[in-house]
Amino acid sequence: MPVETDADVAELGEFRFECGESIENLEIAYEAYGEFTGDNAVLVCHALTGSQNVASHRTQGTAGQARAWWSDIVGPGKAIDTTEYYVVCANVPGSCYGSSGPASDAPDGEPYGTRFPPVSIGDWTRAQRALLDHLGVGRLHAVVGGSVGGMNALDWAVRYPDDVQRVVAVAAAARLDPQCLALDGIARRAITTDPNWNGGDYYDAAEKPKDGLALARQIGHVMYLSKASMDQKFGRRAAGRDMVRDTFPSDPAADFFPYRDVESYLDYQAEKFVDRFDANSYLYLTRAMDDFDLSEGYESDAAALAAFEGEALLMSFTGDWHFTTAQSESVAEAFRADDVPVAHHVVDSDHGHDAFLVEPENVGPPLRDFFHDGVRGRAVTDTVDDDDGGEPEFAPVHTSLFSG
Amino acid sequence: MPVETDADVAELGEFRFECGESIENLEIAYEAYGEFTGDNAVLVCHALTGSQNVASHRTQGTAGQARAWWSDIVGPGKAIDTTEYYVVCANVPGSCYGSSGPASDAPDGEPYGTRFPPVSIGDWTRAQRALLDHLGVGRLHAVVGGSVGGMNALDWAVRYPDDVQRVVAVAAAARLDPQCLALDGIARRAITTDPNWNGGDYYDAAEKPKDGLALARQIGHVMYLSKASMDQKFGRRAAGRDMVRDTFPSDPAADFFPYRDVESYLDYQAEKFVDRFDANSYLYLTRAMDDFDLSEGYESDAAALAAFEGEALLMSFTGDWHFTTAQSESVAEAFRADDVPVAHHVVDSDHGHDAFLVEPENVGPPLRDFFHDGVRGRAVTDTVDDDDGGEPEFAPVHTSLFSG
Repeated sequence: MPVETDADVAELGEFRFECGESIENLEIAYEAYGEFTGDNAVLVCHALTGSQNVASHRTQGTAGQARAWWSDIVGPGKAIDTTEYYVVCANVPGSCYGSSGPASDAPDGEPYGTRFPPVSIGDWTRAQRALLDHLGVGRLHAVVGGSVGGMNALDWAVRYPDDVQRVVAVAAAARLDPQCLALDGIARRAITTDPNWNGGDYYDAAEKPKDGLALARQIGHVMYLSKASMDQKFGRRAAGRDMVRDTFPSDPAADFFPYRDVESYLDYQAEKFVDRFDANSYLYLTRAMDDFDLSEGYESDAAALAAFEGEALLMSFTGDWHFTTAQSESVAEAFRADDVPVAHHVVDSDHGHDAFLVEPENVGPPLRDFFHDGVRGRAVTDTVDDDDGGEPEFAPVHTSLFSG
Repeated sequence: MPVETDADVAELGEFRFECGESIENLEIAYEAYGEFTGDNAVLVCHALTGSQNVASHRTQGTAGQARAWWSDIVGPGKAIDTTEYYVVCANVPGSCYGSSGPASDAPDGEPYGTRFPPVSIGDWTRAQRALLDHLGVGRLHAVVGGSVGGMNALDWAVRYPDDVQRVVAVAAAARLDPQCLALDGIARRAITTDPNWNGGDYYDAAEKPKDGLALARQIGHVMYLSKASMDQKFGRRAAGRDMVRDTFPSDPAADFFPYRDVESYLDYQAEKFVDRFDANSYLYLTRAMDDFDLSEGYESDAAALAAFEGEALLMSFTGDWHFTTAQSESVAEAFRADDVPVAHHVVDSDHGHDAFLVEPENVGPPLRDFFHDGVRGRAVTDTVDDDDGGEPEFAPVHTSLFSG
């Protein structure tokens, strides 16, 4: 750690975080796809444990959801067509895929560990702005992100409203609800109570805090699925007879009971995850997510977004309980209150939060059309029907931008 | 451990568990309220970490949800009126409130630990039957339980159908769904990866597996609440300034971020929990819950319940995502298929699963009236309207017992 990648790494010099602390040289690992023509830049913001490796044509030390995580959406001929757009994706500061974070070496030659400054989503946005300056990109055609990456995209509309023509937040929200705050807090506690975490100083130790990180990941994983998707995928089936609980201590009395498919799957995924992600980064990034509040420093979400003059697309999935359709509708309401052209495209899905990664056939078309034609894009739907000027499917009555 | 109580403890002799293993002398701690008149016995089944201390008039070494956990429902003049009924509640085998379990001494004088036989809900029911024999109670006026205690009550209708006149399952289900199986599995992994768990052998150690048990409890706690109740109770508020993260290791970088009310609450509750509950019992009892399947050994839930000739009441809460209203409706359908008089009383509630403990004003009246008048009880409602013979509010179309 940090994980080896062949991404480009930009050296952006001294960076002062929102907490007030600075580091001498912020390094941001990024990938860029396509050719920049001056007005075709698209910034893609990755999710919590994602990376800059948004598409498949680079080989990397990433894995799982950090590896080519949106290659069905981004690429030549794809919804975000890299023969048309110049697509940039940067690993956020605090992460572990090549950008500065807890696993990076401090000036004293030792890993920062938890001496690394606390990181906020605002810092992600500011670091991305600095990277784009470095790349010679001014105004963006679009910024798009899923999950906490969608929060990151929304933060762009608040922080650099003049720099973004189109904002897309997929399966995101203006802020986490207390249920998710609770689960994130429990996940962090799982890491910090792992004796191998050792206050965050474990990079040179024989044993990493893998047990705690595995638990944290498993808690997160359940948040990404839905009851329906878990029913379909696992049911109550026992895992195959060759599947045994062998990656962590177990209770001898457990052997009387089946090792279930759902347990086996989560255990397997957790084992893969702990090999690809840094425990301190997990602490840092979940804290950034938990802390994000679109309205911070403003009276309301609408006030925060008031200076934005582009167009906005919210996309949500009916089976998502981590970032709900109601939360996306609330963000859409804020844009509407500002008379920003906005569409809230709801996808009927059983996949839970993961839908934004695993349903490219539903995510791609509205994205493609929104990039070309904004909220009037053919495949873009809205919770407000612009023909009858009626009430939205969700949330309180409001005046539609498109009615009358 | 085991926790000291002043409950009566019945010595029930050799007991063979469903797994095939036996112990020499099953001890069951229980409390009995009221006078037995021959036909007025009511068995109350406690929830996962509950105890026999169902009402408040006994002083015990219990705490939290194990202490007088249904004292608003059970007592003189209450819905389950102890001046009318003889109410028995027994601590289930595998638990830690005085009944035989992992913390009990084995014949070699050392605690069983994980040498204690694996326990199933069927074993709970069979142990309760043995206790009632010991007390001279044959047929029960009613068996009632909430959460996994409701599963226990349903198991009575399968296992001893002739012994029960009325069955009440509150916030229960025929089986857990895979989402809950997953969270229970993660909770157990939190315990067994705590180095202090030590294969279940920690009773004489200086350090108990408190970190792991705390995590397990916190995961469970989130399952007992709902998004709405957490919004109302905590929002995203920071905890008071005197509240500090002081019960477990924390990340120095955490101090930049608020310690939220919801985290503080869960941390506080977890600290209380680890003082009152045994980690091995948590493993044993969650496994029993996960393993329960009403239809086990039968073709269907309806087939399992076919021999039952009493009346049944299912009660569920709309905000409960641990044991959903749809799951209770599914059990109601099974009873209906058997022509068992059944009512599914749905309570509109934001409280989540905890509603069965914290809404006595909603739980009491239907219970009281069902105990007196069965499904025709005045305060008992059903998802099937018996006047219009219409379709139920939930689930697929079926022929109502009360229609036509």
